[in-house]
Amino acid sequence: MHLIDLIARKRDGGRVTPAEWRSFAADYAAGRCPDYQVAALLMAIFFRGLDDEETSALMDAMLDSGGRLDFAGHGRPVIDKHSTGGVGDKVSIILAPMVAACGLSVPMMSGRGLGHTGGTLDKLEAIPGFNTRLSLAQAKAQVERIGCALIGQTDEIAPADKKLYALRDATATVEVIPLIAASIMSKKLAEGLGGLVLDVKTGAGAFLPETERALTLARTMIAIGERRGCPTVALLTSMEHPLGVACGNALEIEESIDLLRGGGPADTREVTLALGAEMMVLGKLSADTGQARAQLEDALADGRALAKFREIVAAQGGDPRVVDDPEHVLPRAREQVVVFATRSGVVQRVAPRVIGRGIIALGGGRTTMEDAVDPSVGFRILVRPGQHATRGQPMATIYARDAAGVEAGRACIAEAIVLGDEECTPPPLVSHRVSAAGVQVL
Amino acid sequence: MHLIDLIARKRDGGRVTPAEWRSFAADYAAGRCPDYQVAALLMAIFFRGLDDEETSALMDAMLDSGGRLDFAGHGRPVIDKHSTGGVGDKVSIILAPMVAACGLSVPMMSGRGLGHTGGTLDKLEAIPGFNTRLSLAQAKAQVERIGCALIGQTDEIAPADKKLYALRDATATVEVIPLIAASIMSKKLAEGLGGLVLDVKTGAGAFLPETERALTLARTMIAIGERRGCPTVALLTSMEHPLGVACGNALEIEESIDLLRGGGPADTREVTLALGAEMMVLGKLSADTGQARAQLEDALADGRALAKFREIVAAQGGDPRVVDDPEHVLPRAREQVVVFATRSGVVQRVAPRVIGRGIIALGGGRTTMEDAVDPSVGFRILVRPGQHATRGQPMATIYARDAAGVEAGRACIAEAIVLGDEECTPPPLVSHRVSAAGVQVL
Repeated sequence: MHLIDLIARKRDGGRVTPAEWRSFAADYAAGRCPDYQVAALLMAIFFRGLDDEETSALMDAMLDSGGRLDFAGHGRPVIDKHSTGGVGDKVSIILAPMVAACGLSVPMMSGRGLGHTGGTLDKLEAIPGFNTRLSLAQAKAQVERIGCALIGQTDEIAPADKKLYALRDATATVEVIPLIAASIMSKKLAEGLGGLVLDVKTGAGAFLPETERALTLARTMIAIGERRGCPTVALLTSMEHPLGVACGNALEIEESIDLLRGGGPADTREVTLALGAEMMVLGKLSADTGQARAQLEDALADGRALAKFREIVAAQGGDPRVVDDPEHVLPRAREQVVVFATRSGVVQRVAPRVIGRGIIALGGGRTTMEDAVDPSVGFRILVRPGQHATRGQPMATIYARDAAGVEAGRACIAEAIVLGDEECTPPPLVSHRVSAAGVQVL
Repeated sequence: MHLIDLIARKRDGGRVTPAEWRSFAADYAAGRCPDYQVAALLMAIFFRGLDDEETSALMDAMLDSGGRLDFAGHGRPVIDKHSTGGVGDKVSIILAPMVAACGLSVPMMSGRGLGHTGGTLDKLEAIPGFNTRLSLAQAKAQVERIGCALIGQTDEIAPADKKLYALRDATATVEVIPLIAASIMSKKLAEGLGGLVLDVKTGAGAFLPETERALTLARTMIAIGERRGCPTVALLTSMEHPLGVACGNALEIEESIDLLRGGGPADTREVTLALGAEMMVLGKLSADTGQARAQLEDALADGRALAKFREIVAAQGGDPRVVDDPEHVLPRAREQVVVFATRSGVVQRVAPRVIGRGIIALGGGRTTMEDAVDPSVGFRILVRPGQHATRGQPMATIYARDAAGVEAGRACIAEAIVLGDEECTPPPLVSHRVSAAGVQVL
């Protein structure tokens, strides 16, 4: 295979064969393809796309470039969830112990924050001692023992994807649906799943804000999953505003624990239950999502979900006291400043990208993969779009390291939260359900 | 400047400002831009193009990334020619001494063969001892002394272009008109010219075979030249078949010497005189091209052009006896085999790309810049499209190193030269003249 021929063919609108994708993925993973040629190929794909067969073939090739988990003979249904990423999205941290407490096994591989979105790994690492760097063998053993592991993508999993993802990030070729789909699915299918639920974000804070593109991404991923024998369902959920109240790593852990206790913000609870119910049905532990929700709500109410989280934290080296006393175990920002409404009116907007970039400005996120993250900083957003506010009412709390951080936080909140006079209705939290059977508007 | 922002903007159809192009060219020349990001930018440009202002700005930026010749105070008009490249195109080797003999100064910077096309530098280096690697200062001194230097692009000239050209070649982004135009003009304008004549090839063997694209390239380069105060004229000439009889480095030197003696193939003579006449008019040594042709024909007839070539060869360390006895001074291939027509008919086609690749197969060209070139091998093509041939008539001579080369050469000739029954008329040798005033169909 000459990579230059593949580039020229894709550039001219031609197709690359499955054998060529396989050879490409193997060569790239082995360091035999120069990044500049791969970058040119990626940009040609941005313009020309990949058809379904090419997307599947690329996914297969990336999946096969590494190792995978094998749960053959495992007694419980193995089901995972993936989110396309957002701001304040701590769903995984609640969801994984909740469904594990109900009988599913969840080998959950998550990512770090990049761009304006947060990352589950960064949030978990706000818990003192929590280790997300398990090997595949360690993760498998933990899933077999306690039903859940919360880990990062190891070098063993889809190494071709790992390199490709970093290159896409550096070459403005991230927002390409077939590449996103192949990347996500190559990692998720390496987990040896019996079913997968996708949380595809839409709205201002999503990587693909438009509903149509989100639906295309969902359909593409579902086609890949089904073809590889992994039943896959997607929910389109709103990232028009940050999810929940807490935005920032330690703050989101604290909110997750609230939710695991049966409390916490309604929107986050709703999205978590909706996704969890789909997982329970895929795992055949519930006959339908109605039954599943009842089971999940029980697990939240009776403390089993929280107990499972404590078990996971302890298994991965974290301080389990976080579950009972998050305020004292989690790192706390020195400066905590409330921002008040400067006028009365209706909240028109809480811009998630602005909040996400604000967290980075406070030191709680990355602009390059090498940046260190301060887990203590962030925001608590106290209002939601559509809500009526009165002058002087608390809008948000800033958690910052110092006075400069407070100023950055104020600027962020002033830009992100827009008050106006019009009534406004935020979009539904969960708008579409997509499966192999088609799209259902909710 | 963040290169990733430029990539994303160009990808989305936006414009890059002159200041950004300047900063990019300086950073790239200094090794501060990773090739993978530049490759993504190049592919985005392939799809989105560059408008005239961006093309000019990129050209300026590449030109300004290096040094240039300065002929201020030089007593003679300084004029050069550039060809977009073809097969059998030895025009520069005849043209430069011919017009220098008539009073022009020609600081001619040429390239090496790449792809299916030959390169003037490789041809010149078939002459034992000929050194094309002069510094800018050496080239300038030689032009001032004898009116001509035949050199390669030095590291001093447009270093950003040099790196960009190599990267384009490796990333399938060569055939992009604004990039071709900016690349050619950044090198040519560095020569400190008072005028430039462009030989833009069209037809099967040209990089841009279609007349419309060739015209666009010509117009783009002319606009750049005129804007920088360098009057520029282009002729579109046919590369529908190889130019002349000889194809291969030493063979083409021998044919060039024939032409400098006033003989040689009519097509090569015609193209050379047409381009030379434009140079003479640009240099104001002739009132019109008719007068110019008479002057040039005189220089061929009375031996001044040949004498100037001898002077150049000697000045650049080559064996000047090549002029009088090319057959014994130039390297000769051991195997020389004539190929005969296997049927009678009309020559439909002599495919230049097939011949060009055939020369490479014989060892006379490159597939990578590191390949060594055997100057002795190649073909003499004895028929032209439209010509009637009879069975058993010589069609071509193969010059090869060994029996395997002869076989490769036979396969090449069998593919390249097509005999049929239809009458056929090759396109005109010089089809269009383009200047700032517009396009003239000839």
